[in-house]
Amino acid sequence: MNIGIVGLGLIGGSIAKTIRKNTTHRIFGSDIQQSVVLKAKVMEAIDDELTQENIGACDLIILALYPDATIDFLRTHADAIKPGATVVDCCGIKKSVCDMAFPLAREKGFVFIGGHPMAGIERSGFAYSNNALFCNASMILVPDPLLNITVMDEVKKIFLAIGFAQVKISTPAEHDRIIAYTSQLAHIVSSTYIKSDTALSHPGFSAGSFKDMTRVATLHEGMWTELFIHNQKYLVAEIDSFIQRLQQYRDAIAAGDADTLRQLLKDGRERKDLVNSLELVPKV
Amino acid sequence: MNIGIVGLGLIGGSIAKTIRKNTTHRIFGSDIQQSVVLKAKVMEAIDDELTQENIGACDLIILALYPDATIDFLRTHADAIKPGATVVDCCGIKKSVCDMAFPLAREKGFVFIGGHPMAGIERSGFAYSNNALFCNASMILVPDPLLNITVMDEVKKIFLAIGFAQVKISTPAEHDRIIAYTSQLAHIVSSTYIKSDTALSHPGFSAGSFKDMTRVATLHEGMWTELFIHNQKYLVAEIDSFIQRLQQYRDAIAAGDADTLRQLLKDGRERKDLVNSLELVPKV
Repeated sequence: MNIGIVGLGLIGGSIAKTIRKNTTHRIFGSDIQQSVVLKAKVMEAIDDELTQENIGACDLIILALYPDATIDFLRTHADAIKPGATVVDCCGIKKSVCDMAFPLAREKGFVFIGGHPMAGIERSGFAYSNNALFCNASMILVPDPLLNITVMDEVKKIFLAIGFAQVKISTPAEHDRIIAYTSQLAHIVSSTYIKSDTALSHPGFSAGSFKDMTRVATLHEGMWTELFIHNQKYLVAEIDSFIQRLQQYRDAIAAGDADTLRQLLKDGRERKDLVNSLELVPKV
Repeated sequence: MNIGIVGLGLIGGSIAKTIRKNTTHRIFGSDIQQSVVLKAKVMEAIDDELTQENIGACDLIILALYPDATIDFLRTHADAIKPGATVVDCCGIKKSVCDMAFPLAREKGFVFIGGHPMAGIERSGFAYSNNALFCNASMILVPDPLLNITVMDEVKKIFLAIGFAQVKISTPAEHDRIIAYTSQLAHIVSSTYIKSDTALSHPGFSAGSFKDMTRVATLHEGMWTELFIHNQKYLVAEIDSFIQRLQQYRDAIAAGDADTLRQLLKDGRERKDLVNSLELVPKV
């Protein structure tokens, strides 16, 4: 199969390297930085550059771009995509991308499936990409409700073969609602956390919990700003309910109310145990 | 040297095992659970039980108890401690312990130094203790301002020899102010985070940031309730300023104000880079 990858950053680069490791597919790649394309070719992460000429030969096109750029790319290149080919994006929000891409794909005769690889690190760029990023990761796929189930099953198998541990099928709304909490809120909390002036006095006074809490504060503000703005409704709701819950701990401490505080902490511990017990069993 | 350890939980047990690995000191230990003392003895983490009879033979006594139990122990056992011996506690708050222990130690003729080993995991008890817990950890020591500097230097050397990577000297107020942020707030945020109902839908939709953010929600509510209540003033101030900062992100997202949001995230990233650059260089 010919696979085109648009955007060779952390995610696109890691997808290329993972496909290379696990399959014999032919890989074409493009990036706004020409130096990254050359580097990817020299390092054999891709076979050749993805161009306006060979994009029509690709059976699967993976878009590893920011949300706005993903939408732009689809608008600009829809006519060059082979009828029957499958296009999957990698954006951290799905509704705004799918709302535009589903009808466009139907009109042009290709298949669009929203995607979100559930892996990442607090750094960006091809330099950080690697062929183990998706080892234990879930690939979320968000199909057009009108999509033929056989096609969907084939795409699912392709992503498992590429190297994802599991494929999770979802809808744009479900995806955006859950991701607002599991990923987006975590990045906002981390960014908020690091900004106390007390952080400057941490050396010698900190251990694992501080490190874990502040790890993803090293985020790429351009990408995350787009993701947060695209997911305004669910994200604001999660922040509001987070602040409401945090205020309960604050009030119990301020009142010296040990019984209420102990109960709040106990409820959190029990909820964490429950959440841990829910880990998804990989399904192949 | 004879070292007595009171409380053989995660911290006391790990201290015993670390002393055993790195030194030839004789180790006595006690615990409210007699079965733990026997287990520690069988596993050679301690040489013998610490009793009312041999506590007077200890040159160093380490109290690995909760705050209230630490204060109780000192009140009850002060007369049995050898004059000139050093007592170090391990509580996560220092002012309430030191306020009681400094004058008591002066009166009874022993040395009391507040202590806080900066290491831990989200589990408690001797079963989780190990001789590597303090490998890269700082031991915070909070001496009585009247303490002879030579004695302080000796105690510092003992803790480095035991196996801590560094010793940080502090005051009760400085310790409690910084710990409210680096450790206590992190545990409260983690406990708050896990309680969104969305957490129950996380399987397949979560990655590293969710895992890191919620790790320490598995805390021991009894211990942390004591620590939080003892550190009310600093902790409430940190929670309030955290909520205030988080509200800025929330308002920018709700207003669809990408410029402000991007700046907030950029400030966080730059602050995180600065904080990372401040890592304490171990001093021996």
